[in-house]
This record gives sequence, C-alpha cells and structure tokens, in this order.
Amino acid sequence: MASNFFGQIFRITTFGESHGPGIGVVIDGCPAGLALSEQDVNDQLVFRQPGKSIYTSPRKEGDTAEILSGLFEGKTTGAPIAIFIRNKEADSAPYEAIKELYRPGHANFTYLEKYGIFDYRGGGRASARETAARVAAGAVAKKLLKASNIECTAFVAEIGGIAIQEPDLSNLEEIRGKTYSSPIFCPDEAAAAKIMERISQIKEERDSLGGILACVIHAPVGLGEPVYWKLEAMLAFAMLSIPATKGFEIGSGFSATRMKGSEHNDAFDVDSAGRVHTATNFAGGTLGGISTGSPIYFKVAFKPTSSIKRAQQTVSLKGERATFQLPETARHDPCVAIRAVPVVEAMTALVLADALLMGRSSKFEDSVLPRSGA
Amino acid sequence: MASNFFGQIFRITTFGESHGPGIGVVIDGCPAGLALSEQDVNDQLVFRQPGKSIYTSPRKEGDTAEILSGLFEGKTTGAPIAIFIRNKEADSAPYEAIKELYRPGHANFTYLEKYGIFDYRGGGRASARETAARVAAGAVAKKLLKASNIECTAFVAEIGGIAIQEPDLSNLEEIRGKTYSSPIFCPDEAAAAKIMERISQIKEERDSLGGILACVIHAPVGLGEPVYWKLEAMLAFAMLSIPATKGFEIGSGFSATRMKGSEHNDAFDVDSAGRVHTATNFAGGTLGGISTGSPIYFKVAFKPTSSIKRAQQTVSLKGERATFQLPETARHDPCVAIRAVPVVEAMTALVLADALLMGRSSKFEDSVLPRSGA
Amino acid sequence: MASNFFGQIFRITTFGESHGPGIGVVIDGCPAGLALSEQDVNDQLVFRQPGKSIYTSPRKEGDTAEILSGLFEGKTTGAPIAIFIRNKEADSAPYEAIKELYRPGHANFTYLEKYGIFDYRGGGRASARETAARVAAGAVAKKLLKASNIECTAFVAEIGGIAIQEPDLSNLEEIRGKTYSSPIFCPDEAAAAKIMERISQIKEERDSLGGILACVIHAPVGLGEPVYWKLEAMLAFAMLSIPATKGFEIGSGFSATRMKGSEHNDAFDVDSAGRVHTATNFAGGTLGGISTGSPIYFKVAFKPTSSIKRAQQTVSLKGERATFQLPETARHDPCVAIRAVPVVEAMTALVLADALLMGRSSKFEDSVLPRSGA
Amino acid sequence: MASNFFGQIFRITTFGESHGPGIGVVIDGCPAGLALSEQDVNDQLVFRQPGKSIYTSPRKEGDTAEILSGLFEGKTTGAPIAIFIRNKEADSAPYEAIKELYRPGHANFTYLEKYGIFDYRGGGRASARETAARVAAGAVAKKLLKASNIECTAFVAEIGGIAIQEPDLSNLEEIRGKTYSSPIFCPDEAAAAKIMERISQIKEERDSLGGILACVIHAPVGLGEPVYWKLEAMLAFAMLSIPATKGFEIGSGFSATRMKGSEHNDAFDVDSAGRVHTATNFAGGTLGGISTGSPIYFKVAFKPTSSIKRAQQTVSLKGERATFQLPETARHDPCVAIRAVPVVEAMTALVLADALLMGRSSKFEDSVLPRSGA
Repeated sequence: MASNFFGQIFRITTFGESHGPGIGVVIDGCPAGLALSEQDVNDQLVFRQPGKSIYTSPRKEGDTAEILSGLFEGKTTGAPIAIFIRNKEADSAPYEAIKELYRPGHANFTYLEKYGIFDYRGGGRASARETAARVAAGAVAKKLLKASNIECTAFVAEIGGIAIQEPDLSNLEEIRGKTYSSPIFCPDEAAAAKIMERISQIKEERDSLGGILACVIHAPVGLGEPVYWKLEAMLAFAMLSIPATKGFEIGSGFSATRMKGSEHNDAFDVDSAGRVHTATNFAGGTLGGISTGSPIYFKVAFKPTSSIKRAQQTVSLKGERATFQLPETARHDPCVAIRAVPVVEAMTALVLADALLMGRSSKFEDSVLPRSGA
Repeated sequence: MASNFFGQIFRITTFGESHGPGIGVVIDGCPAGLALSEQDVNDQLVFRQPGKSIYTSPRKEGDTAEILSGLFEGKTTGAPIAIFIRNKEADSAPYEAIKELYRPGHANFTYLEKYGIFDYRGGGRASARETAARVAAGAVAKKLLKASNIECTAFVAEIGGIAIQEPDLSNLEEIRGKTYSSPIFCPDEAAAAKIMERISQIKEERDSLGGILACVIHAPVGLGEPVYWKLEAMLAFAMLSIPATKGFEIGSGFSATRMKGSEHNDAFDVDSAGRVHTATNFAGGTLGGISTGSPIYFKVAFKPTSSIKRAQQTVSLKGERATFQLPETARHDPCVAIRAVPVVEAMTALVLADALLMGRSSKFEDSVLPRSGA
Repeated sequence: MASNFFGQIFRITTFGESHGPGIGVVIDGCPAGLALSEQDVNDQLVFRQPGKSIYTSPRKEGDTAEILSGLFEGKTTGAPIAIFIRNKEADSAPYEAIKELYRPGHANFTYLEKYGIFDYRGGGRASARETAARVAAGAVAKKLLKASNIECTAFVAEIGGIAIQEPDLSNLEEIRGKTYSSPIFCPDEAAAAKIMERISQIKEERDSLGGILACVIHAPVGLGEPVYWKLEAMLAFAMLSIPATKGFEIGSGFSATRMKGSEHNDAFDVDSAGRVHTATNFAGGTLGGISTGSPIYFKVAFKPTSSIKRAQQTVSLKGERATFQLPETARHDPCVAIRAVPVVEAMTALVLADALLMGRSSKFEDSVLPRSGA
Repeated sequence: MASNFFGQIFRITTFGESHGPGIGVVIDGCPAGLALSEQDVNDQLVFRQPGKSIYTSPRKEGDTAEILSGLFEGKTTGAPIAIFIRNKEADSAPYEAIKELYRPGHANFTYLEKYGIFDYRGGGRASARETAARVAAGAVAKKLLKASNIECTAFVAEIGGIAIQEPDLSNLEEIRGKTYSSPIFCPDEAAAAKIMERISQIKEERDSLGGILACVIHAPVGLGEPVYWKLEAMLAFAMLSIPATKGFEIGSGFSATRMKGSEHNDAFDVDSAGRVHTATNFAGGTLGGISTGSPIYFKVAFKPTSSIKRAQQTVSLKGERATFQLPETARHDPCVAIRAVPVVEAMTALVLADALLMGRSSKFEDSVLPRSGA
C-alpha cells in the first residue's frame, strides 16, 4: 500500500535507505514561481547534521542536496521537485554482526513479520536517516509559507527531565535565534547547560535520554480543515510519523484534563485596531480544528534513543534467546530528540503548506475565476 | 477541499449538522459478505447516547440508524454502506440569543473567518453530534475486525485529576465488562465513585471537567504502514480529529521522555510455544509504526467542556465586547470525555479496519492471485 | 477498496441501489457561500427522468431530491452536502424470475465472481439508477462553475448510425436551447426526426440501439493538471465510468489518426483585442492536458441497451445452459444514450469543478495569503 | 496541486524534465519479496529507445536506469522503489531560437498561461521524455502481474490510415513475438511494410502521421472497481494521460454505437470444464467495469506528431504574428504512435497492478487474517 507520501495538495513522497545509494524526496504540488535554490535546502540540512558537538552522534554525514527537477532559472515551475541526497559514509559491516538478532526498540522484528524481508544495514528504510528527506522538503515548504507570513520554529523544551523556562511565544525571531545558536537547539541557556551535563553523564553510562520538543507557529486565522483534517490532527499525524515519538499535545495538552472549563476557555477580546483574538491561549492556537490567529503551540514526546551500548536481552531470528550488543563502531545519538528539532520544524512546515493550499477553496469568492481568464 | 472523509481503503465520509435533518455516514470500501444489521449499529449508538445518568447531558437523543444502502439479505455487498440518523429533538431557539457572539472555546469564530458563514444552531457541523456518525461507522468496522481477532476497548482513565488503577491490559473482556457496566465508562469502581462525586460538585458550580481516556487494542503483529502511515500516526490523527481533544500518547508516552534507553527498551523474549514477544511493553504495542502483537495502548486528553453556564467575557460579531451567557435551557455534559468513550473506540476501530485492509498488499505472496481465478 | 468516489478537491461519494431505500450522494469540498436550493437539483433531475416520450423508458421515476446537510439560509457552508433521492416505484418481482441466470451484457456475472453476492433487484448497485446521484451532484457543480463563466452542454450526436450536423460550438446557448427542447436531446431537428423513427422501429423489433453523445465546454485557459491529471484524462475517466460507455475521443479524436501533422496542428493567432488563440481547434480545446480557451469538445460512445426483450442464450448460476428472457413487465430504454445526456453533462461539470479548484494552487502568487488574514 | 502521481495502492510519482538532470519515478506500494533488478527495467527501456530505425527519431538516448531504493538482495522490500534515468544527450541550443514563440500543437502556451513560467528546453516537463519513467515503472508492475498470470501487450494497429489485420487475441505470445520483432512494433508484416513506406514518404514531405495502438490483456475475472474506478475508466484515464492521445475505445468501441443490442450482447456459455465465459467479446473483456476473464481489448488514438519541419503560422510571446520553423538540428519522430507502444503497455501494466491490489479487499473472506497472525 502506497504509504510513503505525506500531504494532499502539497504532497511529498520520500524514498531511500540508510545504506543504499541515498535518500530522496519528490515534492508534488508546489506552486510555480517560487524562488528556490539548492542552497535553500542545504541551509536546512545542515541543522540536521550530526557531528557538530559531543551531544549528538559523531557521524559526519555532510549532506548535500541535488535538485533533480522542477526548477528553471531559479524558480519552481509547478512540476515536481525531486531532491536527492547521496549517502556518503555508509559502513554496513557493523550490522553484519547483529543481523540475526531482533533489536530491542527497533523495527526489524515488525518489518520482518510484515514484509518477510529487512534491509538491516543501518536500519534500512526504518532508519532515522529518512528524516533528511523530510528536512529537505520542509525547506521548500518554508519558502512558500514565508510569503504568506507563516512561520514556525521548533526547539528543545525538556531533556532527561530538565525543562526549560517557557519562552515568549509572541517573539519567534528571538526563540529561533537562541535555539539555533545553542549546540542542542535549546533556547534557555541555563537549562541547556544542565542538559549538556546530563548528556555527558549518560554517554559515560552507555545509556540514552528522552526528551520533549516544542514548536510554535505564527499563522493567520483560517488554516485547517474540519472535521477530520483539523490542523491539530494533521500535526499529530505528522509528529507521530517521526521515528521515536511517543506523544503529542497542543496548547494546554494533557494538563487541560485537570482544569475546569471556566479556567480553560479562552475569552475573546478585541484590540484597539478592532482585531478579535483570545485573551489567553490554552487552546494552543486552534478552535474547531482551525487556526485562530494566536500562536499555535504544541509539544512532542521522544523516547530515549533505542540504540545503546549496553548488553540487552533479545531473541535471534531463529527464535533462540540471545544477547544484543551494539558494535563499538556503531555511532548513535545519546538523545534523538535533539537532532529531531529540524525534523519537527520541517514536518510542521509541510503540514502548514498543505493547509495553506487546501484553504484556497474554502470560500466561494476565492474559488471563482476572475472574469478575464484562469 | 474535501476533508470530511477518513481512511484510505476502508473510508468513511460523514455529513450532517446538529440541527439539520440528521447526521450520516457513507462507508466506502467495506468488503462484501460481512453479516450486518441496523441492530449492530444501534447497539453501538446507545453507548453514545446521553441522558442515562446525571453524569452526562440530560438530552434524550434516542438515535436510531437507518441503513440506506450496501446490504442485501443481511450481508454487505461491497457497495457503499450509507447510514443515516435523523435528528429528533432539535430546539434551535436557545441559539438565537447567542448567535451574534463569539462563543469561548467553540468554533464559530474560526468557521466564520474561514467560511464567512456559520450554522449556529447547536453548533452546526462543528457540533459533537457529528460523532454519532463515527460511532455508526465504527460499528461496521468492529464487525470486520472481529473476524480477524482484532478487538479494542476504550475507557475513562482519569477525570478531573482522579485517575483509575491501570487495568490488566491482557484481559480485554474484563475491562470491557467493567467499563460498560459503569455509568461513566470507568472500569475502576472506586475511582468511578470519586469521579461521580466530583462531577456532581462541578455541576453545582456550573462548571466542567476535563479527562483522559485510554484505549487498548488486541491485534496481531503487522498492522500499520511505514513511514508516514504508522499505526500510531493514524491513531493520533484519528484522536485529534475528535472534538475537544488536546493530546495523544502511545505506550509510555510523555513519561518516556524521563526514562533511560536501558529502562525503556522492551527486551525481546520467546515463549514456550516459540512466539517472539517483548517482555515489557513501554512501546505501547508498535515498533517502527507496525504492531508487535503486544497490546496497543494509548491515551487521549480531553479539555473540560467548553459549554458552561457561567458568564464569560467575549466579543460580538460586530466587534464589541460582550458577555456570553449560555441559555438555561441549553443542555450540556459536565465532562465531554465520558461520552467520548464510544467515539474513541469507534475511531480506533476505523483505523484498524483501514490498516488491516492496507496490509493485504504488503507481501508479494499475499498479493498474488491463485492460479484459478481472481 | 473505497471506489465510489470521484474527484480530489470537489469530491463526490455516491451510494444506493436500484431497489433499495434510495440513491444518494455526499459532495465534500464545495466552497462556502454558494447559493443553492433543492430546486436547483430537481431542475437537473427532471432531465434524467424517463417517461416523457416513447423514445425513452416508460417508467415514471419522478425523482425529488432532499438536501440533508451543508446548507444554511440558502447557501453552502463549506460542510458536506448530502443529497438523497428516495426510490419510489421499485417492483422487484420481475427480477425474481431471472435471478438465477447470468444476464448478457450486464454485471451480475462479474459482481458475483468479485464479491460473491449480488443484489439482483433492478441491477442493485450496478443499475444505471446510480447516475441520478451524479446528476444531483452535477447540479451543484454547475452552479459553482457558472460564477467562473464555465459552462458545458451535452447532446445526442448520433443514434443508430444517424448523425447530426455538427452545431456551431461557439454558441452554447443555442445548442442548449435546441437540445433541451428536443424529446431526445438532439439539437438537429431533421436528424432527430429520423432517429425517432428508427427508435420506434427498433422497439417493434424488441431490440435496442447505440449512440454517440457529444459535449462542449466553454472555459478559460488553464484548467487541467499535467502530467497524469490532464483535463482530457479526467474527462475520459469520468465518461468511461458511466454505464454502457465504450469509447471517448477529444477534438479530432480517432479521425486525427488519419491526418498529417501539417493538417492537424492548430496554428496560433491573435485577435484584434490581443487575445492569443488557435485558428482551428482539432485539439479539442486542450494542449498538454490544459485548456486553451477554445471550446473543449469531446464525444462518448454508448453501446446499445443490454436489456432487450428477445430470448438470449446464457448460463445459469449453477453452470447450465439456459435461455434468458426479460419479463414483459420490465421496462427499459430502447437507447440508453439518450437518457445519458444529462449524466454526461453532470460528470463533465464535476470534472470541471474539480479542475477549477485544483488550479487555485498552480501559481505562487495565487497561493499566497493576503497580508491581512487567511 | 499534486498531480504527477498515478495509482491508489500501487502508486507512481514521476519527476524530471527533458533537458534537466534526468527523469525519474518513485513506485510506492509495491509488495515486498518480488525479484527485481535494474536489468528488468532496462529491458523495457530499450523498447522505448529511438534511433533503431529510420522510422523513429534518430536520437540515441541510450537510457539506463539506476534503482536508488527499495531493493535488498535482489528483492523488493516493501519500501518505495525510486528509479532514475540520467539525461545524456541534451542540447538545448536549438530551443533558444524558438523560445519566444508559441509552438503549434505543443504545451508552451497553456503552461505559460497556467504557471507563468515554462522550461522550454526540449519541452521541459511536457516532453514525451517523461514517458521513460512510466516505462521504467511499468517494468516493475509487469513482474508483479506475471506471478498472477496477468499479461498485456500493445502493438501498432493502424498508421496513416493503413490498418493491420486483427490478430488472434487468445495468443498473446504470438502477438508479442511478431510485435517486438517488427521495427515499428507492428505484428502484421504486410501492413508493416506499407506503413514503413508511408513513413519514408512523410519524412520526405517534412510532415508526420497519426496512428492507432491496440492493447490486449489476459487477466482473470474480477479486476476493476465499480462504480467510478471501473477497469475501463482507469485504462481510459491512463491512456489519455499519455502525450498526443486523442481517443480511447474498449471492445467494440465507437463501432458499438451502430450495432443493435441483439448483436452486441455477448451470450454467456459454459465450456466442458464448467467455466462460464462469453461466446463473443464485443464488450472487450469487462462487464460493469470488472474483468470477465475474456481478453481485455482496447485501442488508443494518437494524433500526428506536432513537431514537423514545415513553417507554421504562430504568435510570439509578445503577441505578434510570427512564423514557427523548427531548427534543422531538432530530431523528432515522424509518427509518435510507434514509440508509444511500450508506453501504452507500461500504463496498462500500472493500471492492472493497482487493480490487482485494490481487489485484495473486495471479499470479506480475503480480508480476514489467518488466526495465527497478520
């Protein structure tokens, strides 16, 4: 069943395995006339790249994107935009040793049961490497969104139980600045220091940490389609499609369940310019699945990295109990949540681009052609 | 943009407003030969019905389904199954008084901005009444799933901060029995008593409560499609499409973010019959987006009911500050989470039916026709 | 597999059987704010109705539509529009006699093989009665199109080998006027007279005739999506989905195969107002799958009605040779092509409405939100 | 709007321009466990290649496919299969001279109107070069079909008015053998000789010819989905999506319109093995949109090649009348229909693969999981 696609109008289809020729994406449905370059894509890929600090995996992927189609003289043409990122450093040897074992926390058990075959080299299609294609596509979506004044930024909100102080959601630029100047994408410097210490410690323990990412969106009122394609439903779908995610909450999220209606309801108010808005934002920026114009705010839970350098109990493909030990040469992040920041941001951008284009046929007046042509 | 559908192969499209002629659903893609009757649907609708106790809204909807198509001699024919539930008691008068005001926590602001028009009577299309169509469709999905030994049950896990003792997830029948004999769908009798007391109290306060629902699925290994249509992504999408939901978590969920990899990884083990399984189930029943055969377990956060009988600050459609006061005759649930139990269950069944049919083309051997025909 | 839907953005899902409670359609994706009434729908249904002359079936279906959802104060709300047409006169008795036989030219053989079950009463889901739902949906599409100055009209071009003189394609109003004042939807009065004589004769022979319908569209340049969703591909799909159709051709069609490139290429020209257009229109109004602004012109081939009152050789469901004889009381059209005129027109309108809305995200500038909101 | 995809379950998305880096396709939904190699793809691409005879274009594309993903140890894994064909010989210089003119019979006028931008080099995305991606994908579909005993072959049925003698449709192997040993894919040697003479002549005239392709499918009963996704509707959609096509007919096609019902209805018969079949096959292998088990037989009309080396009247992008003259160095086929044979075959295979997988959820019994797992 075709399932490697995301989006309805602005649709991506990704392909590629961790240790195959490369990872790619086809963006189908990007409007024509948008200025775009390989640099735009590479500028985003660099954020996903590991190896910049000890807090992420020491691999040096050094991804560079090749745009294979859909551009002409620096602009999109309306044709599909294919982007390919060739795999560079792919040593499959370490995986030989463990290919006969089910990997705890990994997908080889379920893939083998479902498909009867599994490309074990680096996790094959189930590898987090696939998210590079999402980031590449997200770069295109962001350019489209910018013109409509829609922006989003993701950041680390909590790692190993160490939470940040919630930033001012009305100032995206500041959040973004602090986040991208942090080696762990954490806008709160004090919390970041503690988290980095905690990560250093967990690496020594040959163990890993989980964490929570947050994302804020500034968008006008009207994005999202009722009843099933609510903006938060699309976002939840997007987030839970990212490897290692365990939860999603928008606005007040799970804490809403302990509030009263009189506390939680966001009162409507009107400002001096006559703009209607909510005085508070427990809703997290949507009502009835449609954006309210207030900041859209959600969180995503990531489990601790499954790949750890400790011996773990498992079973072999032949059905015998065995010990799983990751080879020393295998390199993994002590906390996948950190590197997922640009991925969360990219998936958010893809949801928003799709929602933006979906919304072009909501009103009769918008769907009517001007009298003088299409 | 078409957005009132859910599912790829087993697809539903719902229609109808709270105070229009009725609510309906077309199920497109149900295999032929499944025994089905209107009674099957009504048996599920009764659980969604309010008015059985003071803990839910005193309205007596008394929904009965009419199957308009797709059945012949008691079996499905492969043709679309349309189910219609006529609205009975629909007094739109109370809504006249408030039609000129933005309703806090409701969708009329965003709908008006997006569409320029809003059927304010009972909330129109944005009413939770739409969920009756989901429950009706879920009844069909459940019958399909039963034959494949796939079952699910939802229940109240926490209301107003009062949590239940987690039930034994391996015994669905027991959970289901306790849940459906409880006036508030709560399988823990002691917790239920406290919750009911809390609800009585909040009603006196003319306020409302939020809550958390849980759902357990028993299914074989192999359901769910990588990379985007992961089982948990489809479930998250389904859950966040339900009105009043604010969050979703699978397995360890947000608590996973505070665990170490060595704690969270579920070790593989093999039982005496040679069946491979995980010794623990922090994952919540999926790996790489595909079911593992262990119970699939997730939770959904519901905000407190937005409709409360207190005066609230708001703005009129003309942009003037105003006070919103729900008419005394309007009837609403003190906690929407309770009535959402059958809705969560129905949406889960719809996801599973779709995943089941999607999975029929995963393996080459399954997709090949027998030599003697189609 | 969900397959009872048509369209991507402006999407219809139909349901219902010939002798069940009724036939219906859900239109999902119609923009909000369009004026619409049940009268609009009934005005179209009347054209599909038989019994107006001896040239069509003497059944009096007298269809009236009930709009079940999606309207408020005379306008669409953006919510799905469900339309239901209750079956009135449905005598299943005649079908009892033939339910154990495969019907030549009908679908019961293939349905039974595919689904293992078949609602034989009046042809069940395979009945041409399903097309009433298409006509109802087409009525809504037409209203949407009118505002964008897009119009289409279908007509009888040939019956039983008797062809009309091709009308002036630039004057839709005239074609429409002549077509709808003809008892057989034929704009050429002289040809119509001969065709009616031929039909009278074939009825006496207890036989049936085939025919060709034509359809002309006036639309601006730019409708249709390359590469797969070309306008002509969508039209061909739509037409071949109508029961009894055997072929489709656009513009010069099959006759193009005997022309030279120098004859067939439509030269570009410019008029005094500076509008670029093609001097001829062998292309039939599209280039590269996108409308050129010239009249879009296509033809559809219909086989002779399969239901005839002659004895035919067949096989019983038990696999024995048998004679098929339609009961005398069964009523059928001597030429299904005639009654298909409003169906072809409706399907055309559905394709165009979808293409119109699809086109809203082709250009970057159209997809950008105005600075002041969504 | 995403529109560069084809198929629901077995879905392809193509990308690439004539003079860009290359042409590619992502196949999403191919079942796991199918043996596949680059050679399988190249074996098909070679048939589409020009330059083998004077009857097709003298370009030497020499396409070779690189499979970028979805294979492991010679088998498909269930992951998307991306295939890339790098463009080799792409001299854009000749197109510089004509970039300011609308090309008669080509898509630059409509693309410019729709998108405001056009990659004129070699026709960009609108080039027939895109069909290489279809042929590559078709190679995979064919391998999948073979295992289910489903086969198809396309061939030249008529060029420039010279028709072949219809072959015996029950012997696919013979048709295929004769077709692929012919320099113009024509199974009738005598007709082929005449056609080749006609082509030589038209080349001298600096003109081009149209033609008709036919395709025969051997498939079991049960393929195709009512009501909209009828097998013939899917085929018509597929065929009209191929550049230069003007018409489609199945079985008796347009000639059915001049037959009587008593002539056209295919009587059912039963053979000595008890297999029910139709005695004749005017239907062309489907009833009610579902395959009957008889050969499926359809024809596709191709217009004469638009690119001819004669001066043609046109208009410049600035709106002034001009003369269009193709540069001498530009190379084009005197009859595009010939090279479209493998394209028609590939698109047919793609439709069939999709229909095959769609059909896996038609019957309840097929959709049920075996008790012992997924």
